[in-house]
Formats: sequence, structure tokens, C-alpha cells
Amino acid sequence: MKKTAISFTKKTTHSRKNSYLSRLWLVLLLVAGGWVTACGPQSEKEAAKTENNIPMNEEELMRKAIALSIENVANGGGPFGAVIAKDGHIIATGVNRVTANHDPTAHAEVSAIRAACEKLDTFDLSGCEIYTSCEPCPMCLGAIYWARLDKMYFANNKDDAKQIDFDDSFIYDELALPLSERKLPAEILLRDEALKAFQLWREKTNKIEY
Amino acid sequence: MKKTAISFTKKTTHSRKNSYLSRLWLVLLLVAGGWVTACGPQSEKEAAKTENNIPMNEEELMRKAIALSIENVANGGGPFGAVIAKDGHIIATGVNRVTANHDPTAHAEVSAIRAACEKLDTFDLSGCEIYTSCEPCPMCLGAIYWARLDKMYFANNKDDAKQIDFDDSFIYDELALPLSERKLPAEILLRDEALKAFQLWREKTNKIEY
Repeated sequence: MKKTAISFTKKTTHSRKNSYLSRLWLVLLLVAGGWVTACGPQSEKEAAKTENNIPMNEEELMRKAIALSIENVANGGGPFGAVIAKDGHIIATGVNRVTANHDPTAHAEVSAIRAACEKLDTFDLSGCEIYTSCEPCPMCLGAIYWARLDKMYFANNKDDAKQIDFDDSFIYDELALPLSERKLPAEILLRDEALKAFQLWREKTNKIEY
Repeated sequence: MKKTAISFTKKTTHSRKNSYLSRLWLVLLLVAGGWVTACGPQSEKEAAKTENNIPMNEEELMRKAIALSIENVANGGGPFGAVIAKDGHIIATGVNRVTANHDPTAHAEVSAIRAACEKLDTFDLSGCEIYTSCEPCPMCLGAIYWARLDKMYFANNKDDAKQIDFDDSFIYDELALPLSERKLPAEILLRDEALKAFQLWREKTNKIEY
């Protein structure tokens, strides 16, 4: 510890300046690298379109989502990818990182929605469309409704997902059942006390509704 | 810039040591502050229980979720709060931060699940229960299934949420409809190409299933 501290204090202003410059370059490289990673590999045709700001068509956007799903298997994630686009231009992409990130909500669609909202600085993606390599599970479909996306395109369906042991189909079946018949135990508690928050919300004048 | 660099290099090893110590204190204070904020205010009885490591009962845990939902209205969020507990001890809490964080997926339950998974370093919350101030919407209910929570308790229901203009009930109705009858337009594209990712997943030997 002491040695590090001493060697650090020995740096001259000049070498520190160089150090700042090299850090700046590193940051720029990382940002550029992150951008390339976020957009993923593209076909030459797609790359040319992106470069020339030409909108991609529906099949090209779906091929991008599929390519992400295939890459993600090699990268230790689930076989799912999603793209959010506006007027044929990709706003953001997402892949399934549930096990990698220890986040059961990190499905491709949810990840893409979060990334698109961050990029556009909004919680409302009206005017955008989602291309997902597999029919969304109820969690992701819910997220698509809350994000107000205009349309969804999907490739694999929930029965295909069931064939490789994903629970999408099971969760759809559960949601269709009345509370008392579901596998997940549920209990209602203290509704009278909880209604106070809803009354406060109703009475609030300067709220942002959504 | 130069001035800062020079004054920094003039520090002695001793003062740097002090600086490290004060930074360490600052980090500890921030961590402690974060913990207190994450747990939010408690009644005296709850605080005493937490201090003595005595498990809270179902009603106390739900009251905590309700208190969070009430506070959140004052803090510019939606009227929703959630608590994830294990053996009567709070693991993590969450509130609705959709508009505040520009994240349509930042519902109380999803936020609590993410926080609990981060805390326990897992994507599987088996053995935990969720207490939410309102019946989960399909997105959150889906997240509860994916997180493998043992049980859910809720207070307000989806019809109460409808009364204050939240779309929970509408989304439940939509999910129950066949694809072609939903308000959200949907289109199937390139399924044959997308199946490749599922085949790769099936053939992969070292995958983490979930």
C-alpha cells in the first residue's frame, strides 16, 4: 500500500497529463466498443444501410434479433434476442441475461425496452416497434404494453419455447386461471389499509400519469 | 486542472493515509445510509424486531409494503410498494419508479425482485415470499413466477388499480385474448430462421438451465 502511494506521489504533472490523455483515449475506445457491441455484428448490406441512414425493413430487423439470439447462446445467455426500432432504425437491442446477470427479469424484450427508454429518455415508446426472436412471455408482453410500443413482431412461438423447457407456456396457463387455482399460493391482506395510497394518488394534483 | 494536480502530488504519505481512512468512513456511511433508505422508515415495534433479529409476521411485512406505497406518492412515484422476505426477515424492497427513472418496467415488484436477487447473488428466489401493496400486473406476476418466489401476498386488487386509471386490468384482459383479437398488433416473421438458436440451446451441454 505504502509503495503504491509513494510511487503515485512521484508522478510529475507532465506524466499525469499524459495519463489523463491516455485515460481519455481509453474512455473513447470503450464507448466506441460499447456502441459496436450494442449494435452487434451486421451483414454487409445492413452495415451499409446503417452507415447511409437508410431504414431497414421488417425482415432485416428480425434477422438482427435472430442473430442476437444465436450469438447469446455462445455468450452464456438464453437463446433470445430483441430489437426496438423506430421508422426502420434500430434504437436499442437486448438479449437474455437472466443467469449471467442474476436477474430473472433480464429477458431480451425487457432489456431492450429498458435500453431504448434510457436512450430516448422516456418511459413511453409510442412510435417504436419491437422485433423479438421468440413470442414474449407474459412478463415481457406486459412490459410491451406498459412501454406503449406500437407493434410486435416475433419468430419462434411459446410452444417452441416449451420444447426447450422454458416456462412461457406454463405462465400463460397460470395467468388464465383464477387466483385460487394457480400453482403459486396467494393471499389477500390488509386491503383497507392499502387503499390509502390510492386515495392519495387520486387526490394528488401534480402527478405524472402513465 | 493543473492546480489540482500539483496540490494532489504535494500530499504526504501520512495525509494520504488519513485521506484513505476518511474515504473508508465515507463509503461505510454511504453503505449504511443506503441500507437504511432501502429499508425505509419503520414503526418502533418493527425497528425493535429488526434490531433483535426477530422475524416479522405477515401483517407487519404487508404494512411495510403499504408504508412504502404511501411514501412513494409523496416522492413522485406511483402508489405501489413491495417487500421480499425470507423467514420473516426483509431481504429487499421496491417502489414504482416508472416515470421517475424513465423505465416502464420499474414496478414495485420487479424492482424488489431485482434488488433481492442482487443482494442474494442469485436469479432464483425460492424460499422467499413477496408482499405487494397491490395485486401484481401480468408483467410483475410473470416476474414472480420467473423468480420462483414461494408465495405472494397482496392488498389492493387489479380493480382498485383500474379505479385510479392504471392499466393492469386491461393488460390481463388482453393476454386472455387470442393474438389476432388483441389491441396490440402482432406479426409472425422468419420462424424457420429463428429456430436455429433453440437448436443450439438444445445441443449445448454446459448451459445453466432456469
